[in-house]
Amino acid sequence: MAKYKMILDLDTGVDDALAIAYALATPECDLIGIVCSYGNVITKQAAQNSLDLLAALGRPDIPVFMGATHSSTTNHFDVMPISQTIHGMNGIGDVTLPTAKRSIEAQNGVDFYVEAAHKYQGSLLIVPTGPLTNLAAAIKKDPEIVNLIGHVTLMGGALTVPGNVNPVTEANINQDPEAANDVFRSELPLTMIGLDVTLRTLLTKKETAKWREIGTDSAISYANIVDYYIDSYKVTSPHLKGCALHDPLAVAAAVDPSLVQTIYLNMKVDTKGAYAGRTIGDEKRINDPATTTQVAVNVDSSRFVKMFMQKLSNLFKQN
Amino acid sequence: MAKYKMILDLDTGVDDALAIAYALATPECDLIGIVCSYGNVITKQAAQNSLDLLAALGRPDIPVFMGATHSSTTNHFDVMPISQTIHGMNGIGDVTLPTAKRSIEAQNGVDFYVEAAHKYQGSLLIVPTGPLTNLAAAIKKDPEIVNLIGHVTLMGGALTVPGNVNPVTEANINQDPEAANDVFRSELPLTMIGLDVTLRTLLTKKETAKWREIGTDSAISYANIVDYYIDSYKVTSPHLKGCALHDPLAVAAAVDPSLVQTIYLNMKVDTKGAYAGRTIGDEKRINDPATTTQVAVNVDSSRFVKMFMQKLSNLFKQN
Repeated sequence: MAKYKMILDLDTGVDDALAIAYALATPECDLIGIVCSYGNVITKQAAQNSLDLLAALGRPDIPVFMGATHSSTTNHFDVMPISQTIHGMNGIGDVTLPTAKRSIEAQNGVDFYVEAAHKYQGSLLIVPTGPLTNLAAAIKKDPEIVNLIGHVTLMGGALTVPGNVNPVTEANINQDPEAANDVFRSELPLTMIGLDVTLRTLLTKKETAKWREIGTDSAISYANIVDYYIDSYKVTSPHLKGCALHDPLAVAAAVDPSLVQTIYLNMKVDTKGAYAGRTIGDEKRINDPATTTQVAVNVDSSRFVKMFMQKLSNLFKQN
Repeated sequence: MAKYKMILDLDTGVDDALAIAYALATPECDLIGIVCSYGNVITKQAAQNSLDLLAALGRPDIPVFMGATHSSTTNHFDVMPISQTIHGMNGIGDVTLPTAKRSIEAQNGVDFYVEAAHKYQGSLLIVPTGPLTNLAAAIKKDPEIVNLIGHVTLMGGALTVPGNVNPVTEANINQDPEAANDVFRSELPLTMIGLDVTLRTLLTKKETAKWREIGTDSAISYANIVDYYIDSYKVTSPHLKGCALHDPLAVAAAVDPSLVQTIYLNMKVDTKGAYAGRTIGDEKRINDPATTTQVAVNVDSSRFVKMFMQKLSNLFKQN
């Protein structure tokens, strides 16, 4: 029986697709829903991608919710050209999947968060791998949930390495620094899985070739999706010699925190000026006696990539 | 018998004065010389302060060397007004000490570095607590020394917290980002003691009052010097409720690394543009198999401050 209930909060691009597969392949966690967000794609596309991927992986029973369609400080969102380059116009490497039969839920993702926090409390793990707009909205709507939710393990930010949007800012946090600051400064038990560690967990075409050998529909689709992503990394980050497993690492660390080395640090997000979107220790709270925030600074990359390949290969064999 | 030979590289302001006292009060380390630098004061003032402090602490036998008088990329240096505010016009809280009988050495500090590296090799600890201009010049002059020197434990930089010159830059690194980048990117076995940890080690007038009770000349002088510093911190960093023990923490961590928690990380220093002077992980070297650089991210503050008070009080009692 699953130990945890998990909600993924995705702007479903390529590595979000890998996060879904990782969660489904992890028996310790019961994926109870996906809340969608703008980012790599618009929210509606993220939701449709999520539904289609869940169906492709044999789990059409899992509900998908719409979340925010733009940041907490704007009223509109356009996908950045760099996102389209990295994830493809449709977010999943321009691979066409069969359209899922299931529809997007009528309930809003923020309400689903609040409901699930009260229902599952300490056994609820939340893994946001896009902007933090939905989670910030949920804790604003019902502040009590920060003391109910078991743990939040988010992919976003960069503490000990430069950002990927500019030298101080990572893409997810950059979408909504205000929301991210609200989440980081809340008392949520939180682990940040940032570029500090995700740039150390890499996948190459050697691995996707193994999925092709499996030969099932899901294996071929995922190989095609990820090959697109690896090709774009060759252009944007040639020094890495592979693509970063950002979002699935957050899922893995949520279930098995021993994969990462963390430091405890009260964090803040700069919201204005030249450093907007920077995730950094809060010098005003550096000597507070306690903190609920951890930042991953190192990762057992070889163990993670091995587990990642085992889990996903097993899942693909069945679908 | 002393286990280590230590060279301090100081821009002798108030906390550099505390670093001298800490080194002299630590029997495991034999302070073989002080190399001086521009920063909190001009280099000549740093050298005179160092001589006067050594004499006041009963160690007029220790040589003091002139190092660089300006950064590696400029030909002039003016003390910043903020340095004068924090350390006083003379660098040591405008306290007047008896002038030492000893003079500054004729040998240049950079040559002293090179000579000592060859002579003492693995037992040589270097503790720079100002700009890294002298150390960068020494490794440029004789690249072989990076493989000879036992360890460099430097005070400077900020990895997980904002800077103190601007949101990305710490004062020592800011003086000469190019030199700092050369040092960080060398293969020197190096530990960075940055604002990440030094802002967690604080002294208040409660402690300096204990020195006054000791009543010796050195105790009274140091109490006056540090009270000036505490008063300036009340203006510049009121949230800290004390003054930061930046430089003595570097000396302490050099001798007893167990005082700090470190992470291994290949570092770089941004040298140009809006982020010049920032100390950050080098994303291009993040997956290199090995690194010789550690960054302190946490500190056993209560143990350090207790040791600091014990050592300095004992030293003051004898002088």
